[in-house]
Amino acid sequence: MSANRNKRPRQAKRLDAKRPAQQRPDRSSNRQHSGPGSEFRLKHPANVLLYGRNSVEAALKNPQREHVRLMATPKALEGIADLVAKSGIRAQALPSAETLAHLIPSGAPHQGLLLEVKPLDGGVVEDLTPLSDKKNIVLMLDQVTDPQNVGACLRSAAAFGARAVITQDRNSPAETGTLARASAGGLEVVPWIRASNLAQALDTLKDMGYWHMGLDGSTDTSVKSADLGNNIVLVMGSEGKGLRPLVRKHCDVIAKIPMTGAVESLNVSNAAAIALYELTQ
Amino acid sequence: MSANRNKRPRQAKRLDAKRPAQQRPDRSSNRQHSGPGSEFRLKHPANVLLYGRNSVEAALKNPQREHVRLMATPKALEGIADLVAKSGIRAQALPSAETLAHLIPSGAPHQGLLLEVKPLDGGVVEDLTPLSDKKNIVLMLDQVTDPQNVGACLRSAAAFGARAVITQDRNSPAETGTLARASAGGLEVVPWIRASNLAQALDTLKDMGYWHMGLDGSTDTSVKSADLGNNIVLVMGSEGKGLRPLVRKHCDVIAKIPMTGAVESLNVSNAAAIALYELTQ
Repeated sequence: MSANRNKRPRQAKRLDAKRPAQQRPDRSSNRQHSGPGSEFRLKHPANVLLYGRNSVEAALKNPQREHVRLMATPKALEGIADLVAKSGIRAQALPSAETLAHLIPSGAPHQGLLLEVKPLDGGVVEDLTPLSDKKNIVLMLDQVTDPQNVGACLRSAAAFGARAVITQDRNSPAETGTLARASAGGLEVVPWIRASNLAQALDTLKDMGYWHMGLDGSTDTSVKSADLGNNIVLVMGSEGKGLRPLVRKHCDVIAKIPMTGAVESLNVSNAAAIALYELTQ
Repeated sequence: MSANRNKRPRQAKRLDAKRPAQQRPDRSSNRQHSGPGSEFRLKHPANVLLYGRNSVEAALKNPQREHVRLMATPKALEGIADLVAKSGIRAQALPSAETLAHLIPSGAPHQGLLLEVKPLDGGVVEDLTPLSDKKNIVLMLDQVTDPQNVGACLRSAAAFGARAVITQDRNSPAETGTLARASAGGLEVVPWIRASNLAQALDTLKDMGYWHMGLDGSTDTSVKSADLGNNIVLVMGSEGKGLRPLVRKHCDVIAKIPMTGAVESLNVSNAAAIALYELTQ
């Protein structure tokens, strides 16, 4: 297949890939209620409401992130005064933590801080040309739907210096405050690329010099023993169904995390963390 | 310190350690409502309501687990008929999945299956005499409060054949359906020991031949390079505060998971999974 033949669909994909995050509002955080506190509702339904000191600070520090407005209790605002001054963002005083609690998932710890932002543009697969002086690890999540898991994967990807996380634009969670919190800042530092077709994305990455490792228990090859060099796409399936056949077929090697116990499976974010660790040692 | 001097407090601890799980009902699953469905409320407030096929099957297969009653939709019951026949448990028909949804956390996937059980008795630290023919890894969680994280740690502990998970009896989550679900069956196969004093538990384990590895980023020693032999207690602190000073002081070595990225921290269950993996390779 020539590079030219691939060009047009990739452009189309780029446009597609941007839509879902902007069309799907964070239902848990975008309650369009009227009455007390209604002035704090999102300025636009596609915006994302981040909450909690960790998420808010990470987003304020991210130059790629478009900040809409900060809402904070006076005490919380004091705690991040320097950062607010540096970012030049307009802060809106929240009369009380109770006002704030209406706007985010029930029981979520917010530390008096809410930040309305535009969703991030994670870019496209074509951005991931391997850098010659480092390990280039890309984490691909095939149909992982739980925002906590995707958030934790972004966090681990950030901790182990992965180049990007790739999900399908459908069947993967939207960017939300909950996911941002689980990522503990990882969302702000690791590009999260949405591709409309993961098999096509793997083709593109192969052309760029990546080798593809699918993670699955049904093999004798361990992650440690599979020597794929410096440019690796680590492909993880969903916990229930594993890798889909077409995605699996695009992998150069299927590898497993050797386990010794009574339960032969790991949480998908834990498995990703172990594999990222092993591939970067 | 002689073995005798330790005996009395350990007995006291054993009694203390059993109480919390029995006194703290799972608030999310034990709604004592009247009206339609009230006949499905827990028989005893200390009981645990497991939900979903994975949790229910694992509990039915666990001979240590005291089953109170199974509640299931007719269709779900068909799917586990063999297991129900084998366990001899009485099954109560649920008229509909809607009846069931009132009894468990909102939105939790239950697949038409609820199992009321007695909480497990995880035993005591003294049960963990090292077995000479295997790696004896014990995972200790110091002040890890999130049930999802403790559940995921139990799952990883099961996957890597850990001897037990130890938490403090206070400041750790109770046994609930949510935690059981996150453990994906791990709760039923790995003893979960509650100790009233973790420093004392570490003393006891030291006398039994264990070496203690505390996980923390502030060190040059990696988990891989710290050679502690076959009997290891892996001690994890909470994400916010890390190891408490007294617990840290009881560790023979402080080790880290080497990271290379922009975010220098991992989710606690991911860090535990990586360390368990590394220690069992």
